Amino acid sequence: MADSKVSPVPLLKDELDIVIPTIRNLDFLEMWRPFFQPYHLIIVQDGDPSKVIKVPEGFDYELYNRNDINRILGPKASCISFKDSACRCFGYMVSKKKYIYTIDDDCFVAKDPSGKDINALEQHIKNLLCPATPHFFNTLYDPYREGADFVRGYPFSLREGVPTAVSHGLWLNIPDYDAPTQLVKPLERNKRYVDAVLTIPKSTLFPMCGMNLAFDRDLIGPAMYFGLMGDGQPLGRYDDMWAGWCMKVICDHLGYGVKTGLPYIWHSKASNPFVNLKKEYKGIYWQEELIPFFQAAKLPKDCTTVQECYIELSKQVKAKLGGVDEYFIKLADAMVTWIEAWDELNPSDSKAANLPNGAQK
Amino acid sequence: MADSKVSPVPLLKDELDIVIPTIRNLDFLEMWRPFFQPYHLIIVQDGDPSKVIKVPEGFDYELYNRNDINRILGPKASCISFKDSACRCFGYMVSKKKYIYTIDDDCFVAKDPSGKDINALEQHIKNLLCPATPHFFNTLYDPYREGADFVRGYPFSLREGVPTAVSHGLWLNIPDYDAPTQLVKPLERNKRYVDAVLTIPKSTLFPMCGMNLAFDRDLIGPAMYFGLMGDGQPLGRYDDMWAGWCMKVICDHLGYGVKTGLPYIWHSKASNPFVNLKKEYKGIYWQEELIPFFQAAKLPKDCTTVQECYIELSKQVKAKLGGVDEYFIKLADAMVTWIEAWDELNPSDSKAANLPNGAQK
Repeated sequence: MADSKVSPVPLLKDELDIVIPTIRNLDFLEMWRPFFQPYHLIIVQDGDPSKVIKVPEGFDYELYNRNDINRILGPKASCISFKDSACRCFGYMVSKKKYIYTIDDDCFVAKDPSGKDINALEQHIKNLLCPATPHFFNTLYDPYREGADFVRGYPFSLREGVPTAVSHGLWLNIPDYDAPTQLVKPLERNKRYVDAVLTIPKSTLFPMCGMNLAFDRDLIGPAMYFGLMGDGQPLGRYDDMWAGWCMKVICDHLGYGVKTGLPYIWHSKASNPFVNLKKEYKGIYWQEELIPFFQAAKLPKDCTTVQECYIELSKQVKAKLGGVDEYFIKLADAMVTWIEAWDELNPSDSKAANLPNGAQK
Repeated sequence: MADSKVSPVPLLKDELDIVIPTIRNLDFLEMWRPFFQPYHLIIVQDGDPSKVIKVPEGFDYELYNRNDINRILGPKASCISFKDSACRCFGYMVSKKKYIYTIDDDCFVAKDPSGKDINALEQHIKNLLCPATPHFFNTLYDPYREGADFVRGYPFSLREGVPTAVSHGLWLNIPDYDAPTQLVKPLERNKRYVDAVLTIPKSTLFPMCGMNLAFDRDLIGPAMYFGLMGDGQPLGRYDDMWAGWCMKVICDHLGYGVKTGLPYIWHSKASNPFVNLKKEYKGIYWQEELIPFFQAAKLPKDCTTVQECYIELSKQVKAKLGGVDEYFIKLADAMVTWIEAWDELNPSDSKAANLPNGAQK
């Protein structure tokens, strides 16, 4: 598949925004400067709007705090979480670019086994520009990568792959564990650099982490809603998970691919497991019902846009999860509000949404 | 999941047979001596029975040639391929052990990135003794491995996993490509050591290669039939693929897991791509119908043993693939013969097959 290989990797600097939910760590942008400076940053401040976020010189950025979100969205601002990094999805909505990369401010540049700094963004771009292969598993992992291909027994009709909507990167050092696992294994560190990118197969769900995540906003943006978390909500730390489950069901329906693996970032700091437990404990039992729900979710054929799929999914959430807790009724309503707000801020999207494939914009 | 970790790894020397389809390469067993000598070998000679296979001193082995297969199976010997390494499955049938490891004679000991010889068998045993996780994807790969675990968002009810039936190992140096890819990329070598083991998710098919493969014979043995290949057949190099697709459908139905990844062996020699093309060309277009067939195959709930599942699958093969080519009618009949022969040689299996779980033997 030599012709599908992406080499050299384009920078895409006019087509990609970096979305960051608050920056508390002043070293963060300095460390990423060589890689991030060419890009436009969208910073979404998650807490007190009166606090000032210092952005080092030389970066091109826009910053939104809660007052901005309220002003821009009006009553629809209710769908954006407050005092929680879930607010980052507001940045996805106001971006006008094709690609989004989102990263947490406690994530630093990792080194590959040779000691070289990993350009995480470059690897995400590679992942997004290469097709994905959700319909059949390739045992040598990403078949489009240099030095690899489809192995014997891989049907030729499936070798073109499908468009990649999401690239899920991983973390060295502090693994992304839930609070109970953090409590049980406080000293565990992820030291294993697994040199692979792979497509999550169709109909398989996974836990999508928002720490180091890129996606094609044109393909899947409206599904990347991070839900209602933080202030006034009974739940935290399920924002990215929720987005991942909704997104995967919709990608499977629309025929898009989701990749996981490279690139790694260095996750510097474990969050407090006691605080996490408080945020998570309802999620830990709710997810036992959420997973079967998403595994069984089917979207009707006439849902052909992400928006249509997402609205349909919100109805199923209300009907089938409303009984689990009233929170899901509120969340289902917020899902609808989110799509309304998205379409308001992205009017060409919402018109295009009703046109046949390929006729958009 | 510290209590699920397997450390140190048991040798299982009284519970594992190594099955090898002919040994043409005299260095083969010498190179593997430190790792294979504790085990019993079953060598199944694929060609001319009058040729003598030399086994170096110190190995405990039994050797079967075509005359032996004919004598032992009588008319049922028709289900065992001749002049093709697919004959190796006869070895699975005559073994009395719980685990099988099968390897080709052009596969040598590989080195890990630190330069250390890889004990492939030890890694396969680890893979087989640890549970598999086919119902949800873990982004840090095998959650039972030291230094890893289930990540945030992984449902707790799924963390016990399911029994692992198959461990599919990979190959450094010569990748397992089909003839067209071999022809297009004669110089491609697999140099990437991916330090991961992962479960192939439920309902996902993959190309199972027989070069470096281990399985739990008690759990899945009767599904590991390598079909009709070689002398007198229109097809070659689809023996392991066929077994893999049948096996995966049955594992998904019975709730067993299939792993792929580590261990690597060193695949020394590419087979002749022109010869391979002749063997494969029908398979290359047939597989376009085989894959949708296996993807759609459903087994009825009352199929509770591997034998019952396999017989049911043979009926579906005859009904749905018989129209593709008459070869599949012959193959469907051979699948039935294989099960009859298996049950004849393994009478306690076939009785146990009708007992409830846990009551076997």
